[in-house]
Amino acid sequence: MTKKTAPAPPTLNMLAALPPPGADEAVEMLLQGDGVRVERIVSHGQSSPDGYWYDQDEAEWVLVLSGRARLTIEGEAEDRALGPGDSVFLPAHCRHRVAWTEPGAATVWLAIFVDAELAPEPAA
Amino acid sequence: MTKKTAPAPPTLNMLAALPPPGADEAVEMLLQGDGVRVERIVSHGQSSPDGYWYDQDEAEWVLVLSGRARLTIEGEAEDRALGPGDSVFLPAHCRHRVAWTEPGAATVWLAIFVDAELAPEPAA
Repeated sequence: MTKKTAPAPPTLNMLAALPPPGADEAVEMLLQGDGVRVERIVSHGQSSPDGYWYDQDEAEWVLVLSGRARLTIEGEAEDRALGPGDSVFLPAHCRHRVAWTEPGAATVWLAIFVDAELAPEPAA
Repeated sequence: MTKKTAPAPPTLNMLAALPPPGADEAVEMLLQGDGVRVERIVSHGQSSPDGYWYDQDEAEWVLVLSGRARLTIEGEAEDRALGPGDSVFLPAHCRHRVAWTEPGAATVWLAIFVDAELAPEPAA
């Protein structure tokens, strides 16, 4: 007899059912496990507050699904200009900030956060 | 003094540098941790062999970035038709197969695999 498994939940489109523009970016949890989580983040022209740096205990792998953004990574000479399909791996405690997102449009990010204890590394 | 962190590797575009069509799907590791890995999978019309079912110890969250596919999930009355932005959560041991991918085009998948021990769950 086949082992019982949980059913697959309905298909979700990452580019649909976008939250409306608001004061802040909209963050939705998609998948949560012990030490790993996946979020959809939707920006409508927001950027990180002046002088604010993300400095996370987790590694982050982030992918732009639609829209455009500029990401500042501490120690890099120039911002990274990101558009659809662009992905960046940010090691734990790699300080970064969102310098700009496209105004008047939705920039949709997929972000995977992995605890440093799970030793996440980008493939060579 | 700031703690030393690993530098962020170069930006990678998921829709660029696509592998050419071949006999098999092309699988590239993007991120690897203990119990979690992220892959880019590029299909050029391939489907799962007749009668073959994926039956994985890991949960999988899969997202179509470009192209089109049909996914069969055991016990569901109809295949799921997937296009850009569509995501599906497949619990561990949820048997599934790729019934079809678009011929003459690249179907680009992002797949996140998480060990069942990390108790991955889709958000409600």
